[in-house]
Amino acid sequence: MTAIEFQFDFISPYAYLAWTQIHALADRHGVGVKPTPVLFAAFLNAHGHKGPAEIPPKRVYIFKDVMRTAAALGVPLQPPPTHPFNPLLGLRVASLDMEEEVRRELVDRLYAETWGGGVGLTDPVDVERIAALCGVPNAVERAHTAESKQRVRSQTERALKGGTFGVPTMVIRGEIFWGYDSFAHLDRFLVGDDPLGPDDLEKWAHIVPSATR
Amino acid sequence: MTAIEFQFDFISPYAYLAWTQIHALADRHGVGVKPTPVLFAAFLNAHGHKGPAEIPPKRVYIFKDVMRTAAALGVPLQPPPTHPFNPLLGLRVASLDMEEEVRRELVDRLYAETWGGGVGLTDPVDVERIAALCGVPNAVERAHTAESKQRVRSQTERALKGGTFGVPTMVIRGEIFWGYDSFAHLDRFLVGDDPLGPDDLEKWAHIVPSATR
Repeated sequence: MTAIEFQFDFISPYAYLAWTQIHALADRHGVGVKPTPVLFAAFLNAHGHKGPAEIPPKRVYIFKDVMRTAAALGVPLQPPPTHPFNPLLGLRVASLDMEEEVRRELVDRLYAETWGGGVGLTDPVDVERIAALCGVPNAVERAHTAESKQRVRSQTERALKGGTFGVPTMVIRGEIFWGYDSFAHLDRFLVGDDPLGPDDLEKWAHIVPSATR
Repeated sequence: MTAIEFQFDFISPYAYLAWTQIHALADRHGVGVKPTPVLFAAFLNAHGHKGPAEIPPKRVYIFKDVMRTAAALGVPLQPPPTHPFNPLLGLRVASLDMEEEVRRELVDRLYAETWGGGVGLTDPVDVERIAALCGVPNAVERAHTAESKQRVRSQTERALKGGTFGVPTMVIRGEIFWGYDSFAHLDRFLVGDDPLGPDDLEKWAHIVPSATR
């Protein structure tokens, strides 16, 4: 089955909100969802960019914005115990080999612990317990292998090469859609109603700057 | 009449799209719109941030995203002759003393010349002609005075102090809303249906980081 690749990091409340909605969108179009854990900080490093939480007034605004969107969607949202936090353990555990329905449940639970009023993902004891609830044994130990670390690194590098610069990013048929705000565009794309043609892109590809900062 | 302050820069296609929709939103709520020209680059400088057009894959994505949104809204959108360009002349002309209905028409026309398939704002001859069409005489000469330059600088500094970090930013009753994507939140705020209370903000105000990049 064709699937929307859902590139995400637990650090992002926007990725959490999008995760709570992506399966309904995919179901409407008869496609699957393939979650891919990636490290958001690596995108910022690669592009020399700052995350929204690294700009003080934007951090305040973003928190208000996600609370408003969560309220509109009826999705539980609470501040995590700490933020920013190191999401690598969660990303590595969510990338272990497992059946895709198990992975969906695991991502659900790890996200609920992060943004749904849970205990967060910084204590390995919690992460181990959550993974075990989903039938994923020895998760923390397995997440610490070189192979597990390399897996998240490879997923992140592949996303970066594909043009990803933030999370969540949804990829389907080579096209990327960024953020929950892009869901309406993704919906139209999936019914063959994307307004963009090759000529449109060509027009915009050659605009030259006449000023830089 | 209460008014939504609309902080914008001609450099931003998102501010253009929002400008084409803000009056309808304001009309629905019986409030006015007060356009305030500000220099987006100054926000980036102040926060040590990069604009979307300064990150190559984001630049490509943003162009696609604005084309898709423009198509969904039925708003004309064409790439400007150059981008990024220096928007200061346009911002200063749009900040000259004039009646507010004249300013609305002038901003309409300057935006149409930038993102609606026009000649752009980099040639003072064009800017002078557009301003004259709106009944604003000697616009370029008046825009070059120290007072005109200071006006845009003051507007930008005031916005920055108020928490603005990007454009468009809509401000009403001390609350800021960023981007066209925030219109639904702004709509709810204006009917007294904002889900945020002081307790919500308090909860989020004290989250501490446990990791940084």
